Amino acid sequence: MIVESLALVGTGLIGGSFALALKQAGAVREVLGVGRTPARLDEARALGLIDRAADWAEAGQADVILLALPVGETEAVLRQLAPQLKPGAIVTDAGSTKANVVAAARAALGTRFADFVPGHPIAGSEQSGPSAARADLYRGKRVVLTPQADTRADAVATVRALWEAAGAQVETLGAEQHDRIFAAVSHLPHLAAFALVDELAQRADSETFFRFAASGFRDFTRIAGSSPEMWRDIALANQSAVLAEIDAYVNALQAIRAAVAANDAASLQATFARARAARERWMNTQDV
Amino acid sequence: MIVESLALVGTGLIGGSFALALKQAGAVREVLGVGRTPARLDEARALGLIDRAADWAEAGQADVILLALPVGETEAVLRQLAPQLKPGAIVTDAGSTKANVVAAARAALGTRFADFVPGHPIAGSEQSGPSAARADLYRGKRVVLTPQADTRADAVATVRALWEAAGAQVETLGAEQHDRIFAAVSHLPHLAAFALVDELAQRADSETFFRFAASGFRDFTRIAGSSPEMWRDIALANQSAVLAEIDAYVNALQAIRAAVAANDAASLQATFARARAARERWMNTQDV
Repeated sequence: MIVESLALVGTGLIGGSFALALKQAGAVREVLGVGRTPARLDEARALGLIDRAADWAEAGQADVILLALPVGETEAVLRQLAPQLKPGAIVTDAGSTKANVVAAARAALGTRFADFVPGHPIAGSEQSGPSAARADLYRGKRVVLTPQADTRADAVATVRALWEAAGAQVETLGAEQHDRIFAAVSHLPHLAAFALVDELAQRADSETFFRFAASGFRDFTRIAGSSPEMWRDIALANQSAVLAEIDAYVNALQAIRAAVAANDAASLQATFARARAARERWMNTQDV
Repeated sequence: MIVESLALVGTGLIGGSFALALKQAGAVREVLGVGRTPARLDEARALGLIDRAADWAEAGQADVILLALPVGETEAVLRQLAPQLKPGAIVTDAGSTKANVVAAARAALGTRFADFVPGHPIAGSEQSGPSAARADLYRGKRVVLTPQADTRADAVATVRALWEAAGAQVETLGAEQHDRIFAAVSHLPHLAAFALVDELAQRADSETFFRFAASGFRDFTRIAGSSPEMWRDIALANQSAVLAEIDAYVNALQAIRAAVAANDAASLQATFARARAARERWMNTQDV
């Protein structure tokens, strides 16, 4: 047992899978769930993700409170929670952006900011909601923590131990470094997939196009099946890094455009061959 | 038996899978293979894709000759083949672009152009080569034929019957319409995946980025594992449609960029929600 009690604020895929994994590992005794939608809490309880629904006052008495909700809601939730926190309670999150979460936590938690451990599990699915949760979601996956200079070291250690109990490999990064990296390898691809599908869908004869789309299109656009609310929040929360990545990507596309327009076969082949080689190297080092 | 003999010019994934499927269906008796690389022909024979290697003169005596090679090689191959074609022989291809293939065939085949049936199986893999071939590659997949006004009707009927024997569903389109559709749903996504991976790979600190890339990145970039030569040829062969699609895609990305820069949450959510809904509708109508 690492902690007695865990409270989930948000009982969907991310929070629910964390709770299932910790229960299975015997790392937590009781899991509480907080949320605005009673039906969703009932579903989470029926699925065994939480033991019972709780209010803010009860959640504040838990040893660890995990926020697993769209990052845009972080500050409002922490303002509700702050006055209820028992001494020693640790708050952590699972948001896909970190600099804005750190700023929100600093503003909302005041003197209790030292008890906040910013985190980001690099796992998920285009599925969402309590029914998508599974105990093995984090097994072998990376979790990034971005503790600040004034974050309590033993709070970091506890959160790390919980993620490791869930099967994850924990790393630490600076919050800004985290946001720059994920703007490139996650946020941009999501926006790019949404852009491609929406651009086609807006055409008068879109059905003709979709009719002939095949497996390459399916995989390229899989992440366009993700939650619009979640990605709206992420794009805005990580604004400056996302803008820089869109610009870099558009420049890369324009370079390919120029090579196509100029019939520059050598340049196209060099670009494609470098990309294929880089992806092969990456696949060989990853377990994804 | 639909035809006695089939000659493959190109014995990789596409040609080899066609031959395997037809053999399995009892639709062809003998399969010949033509190619510049003896080792590759030996491999194709060892894998059962072809019965024996052949030269151009022998290939020209086959009932049907399938070109399954990079589209940039079409005209040169057809010029070799043209003088060898027996009366009634049918030539077809499996290229991903059609207007340029039609033009190449018209230039190379002269009076025998009526025997050429332009085709494009919508199936494949980022794997390539003889060893990737499999008999069920085309099962349930679409094949597009783009016969011209002067294409012999019974040649079209024979090629259609062969693809149907391989398990595919055959449709016809105009060559220009084909190229416009596939520029959008296939060629652009490939270029976009190559662009994303290469842009990251060119950065001085690319290892840091790749280290945190996960399953969304993996699927978005799967097609960046495709053959550089093949996609170089396709991009140039379908130049004007590809340029138009790059422009439309860059415009869509710039619209998202503008919404992010303006903190326009409503517009982002609307775009992402439209994309998700369109993709869901598409997935529900497709077997991909």
